[in-house]
Amino acid sequence: MTAGPAEDTRTRLLRTALRLFTEHGVEGTSLQMIADALGITKAAVYYHFKTKAEITEAVAEPGIRDLDELVRRAAAQRRRGAQVDLLLEGFVDLVIRHRALVALFSSDPGIARAIEKSAHGGTEDFGRVLLGILSGPDPDTTARVNALVAVTGIAMAGGSPDLAALGDDELRAELLDVGRRLLGRPRRRTPVSAF
Amino acid sequence: MTAGPAEDTRTRLLRTALRLFTEHGVEGTSLQMIADALGITKAAVYYHFKTKAEITEAVAEPGIRDLDELVRRAAAQRRRGAQVDLLLEGFVDLVIRHRALVALFSSDPGIARAIEKSAHGGTEDFGRVLLGILSGPDPDTTARVNALVAVTGIAMAGGSPDLAALGDDELRAELLDVGRRLLGRPRRRTPVSAF
Repeated sequence: MTAGPAEDTRTRLLRTALRLFTEHGVEGTSLQMIADALGITKAAVYYHFKTKAEITEAVAEPGIRDLDELVRRAAAQRRRGAQVDLLLEGFVDLVIRHRALVALFSSDPGIARAIEKSAHGGTEDFGRVLLGILSGPDPDTTARVNALVAVTGIAMAGGSPDLAALGDDELRAELLDVGRRLLGRPRRRTPVSAF
Repeated sequence: MTAGPAEDTRTRLLRTALRLFTEHGVEGTSLQMIADALGITKAAVYYHFKTKAEITEAVAEPGIRDLDELVRRAAAQRRRGAQVDLLLEGFVDLVIRHRALVALFSSDPGIARAIEKSAHGGTEDFGRVLLGILSGPDPDTTARVNALVAVTGIAMAGGSPDLAALGDDELRAELLDVGRRLLGRPRRRTPVSAF
């Protein structure tokens, strides 16, 4: 990965696309709008991405890669308690690291649809594995509901404009706390500096 | 309200529109698709609704009306505990009564956007009042996070395809239970027959 001007434009382009997707929805954002917001020509956008689908994929890619890696790491733990703790802490961390993207995923099926059609394809599978670990083996209804409420509630609250003014550390502590309560995990002092 | 054949077509039309919205998104559903699915002409659709926005509004109307009434009833209670209990029970009941609509609201900003532009306008306000009651007066961060996770988690879990096979009574009991835990309300035996 080189840090030349080409990469800079690409990075700016993806950041701008995410902002426009958030404001207008994926389906309500055109390549022309992205070009206009950056003050570049549509041809300059085409130099980096041929279609809006390619941009959408590239916008979502860092979050999906982190989620993929997290689920793999968690699944490799031996004890269920360690799996759940690692997954919960990692998921909260991911939600905070990718706040704007999570807010978009929580509110716009356009991005989920774009990813489904892409080579990544497997976001639904990550979701299943993640819920499967959190709800445990042979889960009863209560365990399934708790896992679903934890995952969707943490994602929705983490991406909510209502909490946008909260600092990362405070939001992380709150989301971890509510997640542990929902999943029946012991509350513990999280070394904030470890993140 | 008369129960003539005109009303029957209207009711079928709205049910079909909700199904198509769920499958293709509000923005991915055309009047022609609705007409085709009903086996009627587009002109017959126009007889009832002039635009897709009118259909979207009419699809959402029963849920919005119920939410509006619920928030008013809760706000009129004197004690905060009674407000929270009434709101939580009513919200869970509403999520279950309008499962398909809630799933659509949880996953498609197209419907929220359509409503925002409509005469109803105030869904955001209902949301604020609802969260305001659940998080209490002068809420600290924890109270705000708990209320957000409760409302979004209950709505998302209630509308989730993962729990679509659960019966209404079982889902209601589970969602009430998780909501009470999040909001610090005592667990109580809910007379199922009262719903």
